[in-house]
Amino acid sequence: MARCMSETRPLAAIILAAGKGTRMKSNQHKVLHEVGGRSMIEHLLASVEALAPERLVTIVGEAREQLHERLGDRCAFGVQEPQLGTGHAVQQAEEALAGFSGDVLVLYGDVPFVSTATMQAMIDRLNAHDTPSSVVLGFEPDDPLRYGRVIAQQGRILKMVEWKDANEEERACTLCNSGLLAARAEDLFALLARVQNNNAQDEYYLPDIVNIAIADGQTCAVVNTPRPAEVTGINSRAELAAAEAQWQEFKRAEAMEAGVTLRAPSTVFFSWDTELAADVVVEPNVVFGPGVVVASGAYIKAFSHLEGATVGEDVEVGPYARLRPGAVLEKGSKVGNFVEIKKATLGEGAKASHLSYLGDATVGAGANIGAGTITCNYDGYFKHKTVIGERAFIGSNSALIAPLNIGADAIVAAGSAVSRDVSAGELRMVRAEQMVKPGWADRFHDAMKKKKAGGK
Amino acid sequence: MARCMSETRPLAAIILAAGKGTRMKSNQHKVLHEVGGRSMIEHLLASVEALAPERLVTIVGEAREQLHERLGDRCAFGVQEPQLGTGHAVQQAEEALAGFSGDVLVLYGDVPFVSTATMQAMIDRLNAHDTPSSVVLGFEPDDPLRYGRVIAQQGRILKMVEWKDANEEERACTLCNSGLLAARAEDLFALLARVQNNNAQDEYYLPDIVNIAIADGQTCAVVNTPRPAEVTGINSRAELAAAEAQWQEFKRAEAMEAGVTLRAPSTVFFSWDTELAADVVVEPNVVFGPGVVVASGAYIKAFSHLEGATVGEDVEVGPYARLRPGAVLEKGSKVGNFVEIKKATLGEGAKASHLSYLGDATVGAGANIGAGTITCNYDGYFKHKTVIGERAFIGSNSALIAPLNIGADAIVAAGSAVSRDVSAGELRMVRAEQMVKPGWADRFHDAMKKKKAGGK
Amino acid sequence: MARCMSETRPLAAIILAAGKGTRMKSNQHKVLHEVGGRSMIEHLLASVEALAPERLVTIVGEAREQLHERLGDRCAFGVQEPQLGTGHAVQQAEEALAGFSGDVLVLYGDVPFVSTATMQAMIDRLNAHDTPSSVVLGFEPDDPLRYGRVIAQQGRILKMVEWKDANEEERACTLCNSGLLAARAEDLFALLARVQNNNAQDEYYLPDIVNIAIADGQTCAVVNTPRPAEVTGINSRAELAAAEAQWQEFKRAEAMEAGVTLRAPSTVFFSWDTELAADVVVEPNVVFGPGVVVASGAYIKAFSHLEGATVGEDVEVGPYARLRPGAVLEKGSKVGNFVEIKKATLGEGAKASHLSYLGDATVGAGANIGAGTITCNYDGYFKHKTVIGERAFIGSNSALIAPLNIGADAIVAAGSAVSRDVSAGELRMVRAEQMVKPGWADRFHDAMKKKKAGGK
Repeated sequence: MARCMSETRPLAAIILAAGKGTRMKSNQHKVLHEVGGRSMIEHLLASVEALAPERLVTIVGEAREQLHERLGDRCAFGVQEPQLGTGHAVQQAEEALAGFSGDVLVLYGDVPFVSTATMQAMIDRLNAHDTPSSVVLGFEPDDPLRYGRVIAQQGRILKMVEWKDANEEERACTLCNSGLLAARAEDLFALLARVQNNNAQDEYYLPDIVNIAIADGQTCAVVNTPRPAEVTGINSRAELAAAEAQWQEFKRAEAMEAGVTLRAPSTVFFSWDTELAADVVVEPNVVFGPGVVVASGAYIKAFSHLEGATVGEDVEVGPYARLRPGAVLEKGSKVGNFVEIKKATLGEGAKASHLSYLGDATVGAGANIGAGTITCNYDGYFKHKTVIGERAFIGSNSALIAPLNIGADAIVAAGSAVSRDVSAGELRMVRAEQMVKPGWADRFHDAMKKKKAGGK
Repeated sequence: MARCMSETRPLAAIILAAGKGTRMKSNQHKVLHEVGGRSMIEHLLASVEALAPERLVTIVGEAREQLHERLGDRCAFGVQEPQLGTGHAVQQAEEALAGFSGDVLVLYGDVPFVSTATMQAMIDRLNAHDTPSSVVLGFEPDDPLRYGRVIAQQGRILKMVEWKDANEEERACTLCNSGLLAARAEDLFALLARVQNNNAQDEYYLPDIVNIAIADGQTCAVVNTPRPAEVTGINSRAELAAAEAQWQEFKRAEAMEAGVTLRAPSTVFFSWDTELAADVVVEPNVVFGPGVVVASGAYIKAFSHLEGATVGEDVEVGPYARLRPGAVLEKGSKVGNFVEIKKATLGEGAKASHLSYLGDATVGAGANIGAGTITCNYDGYFKHKTVIGERAFIGSNSALIAPLNIGADAIVAAGSAVSRDVSAGELRMVRAEQMVKPGWADRFHDAMKKKKAGGK
Repeated sequence: MARCMSETRPLAAIILAAGKGTRMKSNQHKVLHEVGGRSMIEHLLASVEALAPERLVTIVGEAREQLHERLGDRCAFGVQEPQLGTGHAVQQAEEALAGFSGDVLVLYGDVPFVSTATMQAMIDRLNAHDTPSSVVLGFEPDDPLRYGRVIAQQGRILKMVEWKDANEEERACTLCNSGLLAARAEDLFALLARVQNNNAQDEYYLPDIVNIAIADGQTCAVVNTPRPAEVTGINSRAELAAAEAQWQEFKRAEAMEAGVTLRAPSTVFFSWDTELAADVVVEPNVVFGPGVVVASGAYIKAFSHLEGATVGEDVEVGPYARLRPGAVLEKGSKVGNFVEIKKATLGEGAKASHLSYLGDATVGAGANIGAGTITCNYDGYFKHKTVIGERAFIGSNSALIAPLNIGADAIVAAGSAVSRDVSAGELRMVRAEQMVKPGWADRFHDAMKKKKAGGK
């Protein structure tokens, strides 16, 4: 997807993200809300970064500290305050683009799913033999509503018109303006300087540069997206949920196409980077957080939740398994119900089948972790590591107090709180005497029944 | 929503619930089946109670003891036995309404979602300047099927007609009779006394009073519901499920509108009284039982189940957290996977991250509850309380045998069964000696392998 | 459903399953992929076996060892290698049908949902008074796409035609060829011997026998399926998921019709043999694996996962209960959150409410299993049994080391690892001394805070 640099001119991208998004009713900036476990603006950044732009400027306004913190060194920033329209917003990138000569893409932080291919198509059109002054991305939605219209003939724009200013004939045109635009840096800012705000909103509109260029006798072109959904904007929680649903559908279809069995696709949730190999089976109700890779033959049972986990071939996960970041399950290992794995490796064929917590641990191949085993990895201040040898057998309800080494083939007796290392082949038992009190329970029952009766 | 009592006449409501509902195939009375965690009839009662009726009568028949028990003193009862039609059913309220003079609303226990506003609109119409004898609630469904028709002109009824008795022209009319009706008490029972049962079913039909009044030269009016879905009746499990789905959709949209993020709305289930603040995030697959309030910034992870719980600001819940009635999570506290909280308060910033049961407990601010901790709150007869001080550290796999007090900053060593109070700043350890048996495991493995081989 | 043998001729069925299914992108044979927890071919086998066929032949090719292993003695096999078309495939059954005289049904392993009734209808037609030479199963899909067409008049076939060979008029005919066919054994193989492969694919097509018979002057008939969905073929994971979804919808509707409450039907997943009685309530997000029977009044809470379990009257299961094969919950018993039950019986009214694992166990009526109880049933080599008496009380966080008997009314103190039998009425406590170290925690906190500060 990377552009062939030798053939193309330098690229800059401007991402408009000055509006915090009041309709989200959120303290979080609109473009930081997530789809598929990744913020909208990071989806967009990933797509534009695939074009290796020389400069990237995000235009920020309210709550900009949130964007500074999240995006860090990934782009430069321009501040738009007050907010006087999209044209005015793009102007705020001029300083960050000082000295830049090349093509400029204008993108929107809340229109996060525009593909790299579409961006490339806009740039290619800008550099076509007729060198248009600017290229607008158009789309044909099922219902064109009140979107601004692109009046064009054979890909050349005659006029950009807002819906409220459009006449009947113009409204009948179904090619809409997505807002995305490509232009040469030198043209862009020169044209923007000529845009007026003599409209109902007193705003400076970006599409006006197209009309100005046309009036100057220049060519402006429209490129039509093949997939109108990619220019969907997200302005409310309901639109966010709809975008998430659409995105998940896409990922599920992609996984099935690649040979993954999803028993109930609509109940499986992917993250942006989830990787499942062919012949992985996923039961209903599974959630993949970011950073999960699953190898062929693995079986993910219902109600499992995986994040940052590497699942090997023929591994069995769940039901009710929680794999947290750093979980590595090697070939043929098994993590069963109500088991949590964090920063821990299970060696080949190792098993932790029930009700356990393994954190900061290494479990050797073929080891068996009994039900209710807990690695005590935290002392309230520091985390410590547990190392369990191959074929070791950890009895049920054991507490393994880290730092701790348990040797190969060792056995820990059930119910032991192990605080000192266990050698290979050793049995470790930490257990008090069996205190036998015959008849005590009978007497207790009698006393309690009386008390209960008396209490009434 | 409460009526302005000074302006309005006294109100009574009659709820018809004599039919147990054979199509439900249930031992439970039809109107006690639940939507959003509340029985149908209680949904309806809540809506009518907002109008502060002076009297409320439920007409019961088969399985009436179930309704007596559930509704208790919330309404009076009339018994219809045998069941000779809706008109006959309403007559059974006459005794309970003895001496009542005012407006009467006739409602249906299996039509539970009629809004207070719609009821009010019916009463307002009854008291309009032309004082109609009765007011019928009409609706215009997508498909009018075989519903009875309301033949009306400009809101005045010309004729009520059952579908099977209707002629072509009448059937073409799409305004249907919901069955709901408002009339003055004195008119209602006088008209009912004149209704005949000379029809195929030998039943006394309530709508006949409208035709009788019209024949008497009186005005009868129809009020049209703005939302046909509110008069949907529920007669089978499939209709119950459909009503639940519709109701959930409504609640989800309402939550998102209020600024809640639902990653996968269709997988989140609300109860009738669920309250989520803006900027609450809910992951897929979360179930809210009755009595849950969640404050802003709280994050509810996948596979969580909450009932009767109060969740404070910035609290993290789940995945796989079960909050039961009386769970109170204060600001910034955390309840992690496979943790159950019942009648217990977690102080500010306190954490119970894994595999624990906290019941009948108070956990101080900043305390850390290790994995596998269990409050032993029940001795088979009585429940006892556990109090854990601020910043206390409870080691993993501990059993806290209530009644028990653990002081501030105290530490309980991993694997301890604590049966006596722990002072502030104290370390409590309940642990047997580490019994070391070198080579024992190796010998055990050898013996077992032989036995296993021999067993074949 | 069994055929009345006295009236009917012997039946044989040939199931074509030679194609492994490249579009599945799987190492597993296509017809072994599952819907509702049962492989496609086993769904089909169950339907045809209800007709008590005298012979059953599956035609296999690639990956046939998988089919041999799974289907074992349930049918004979014919091998098709190379694969030269459906006609050629059917010919490979000739050897296995040597000496058979009667009716033959041709079925497809990847068209698994054809009902017994439809198969019977084909055979009945074959044996009708006009004794057609063969009977084709036709269907009328919503969109006939490029399916082969059956050109017929009043149920008699004029011509079978592939879509690509059909003229306009033939394509306009909406009756499509499902591929299923019935014929008399002697006719079938005689006709197949005359089929040519002079077509674009060089294949021998089964429908050609119909055209040959017609040219011979014989009658061939078409039977139309009442439910086009039953002849849907499954060739990809997406089609598999769609079939699963359709199948689940059917099962959910069936359950509701029988009086089961499904709060959110689309989140409940059935297996092919799930049996739920009337007045069972199922909350959202429940998965039923194979072998589950639930009695009336049982309440299955959210996030439960059941396989091979028998759930008695008025039992409460979940949320987050995992019942594995051999779980038997008797009347009024309760299995709560994060509890796993495997090969274990809970007696009447017994409770295991939290965080427990009961495997290879018998729990007496009225016994109470405390939170965190674990039966240590496995020593790494053999499984052992735990027997708990009536009304016994197992304290929280106990490890019950099997083989173990605990008598009626006995009490096990919290946190005990019990390795020797407990008598009826006895108290067993396995607990070390409470070691009290006043001020130790305060000193530890000071030291750690210093270390942490120093570490920075």
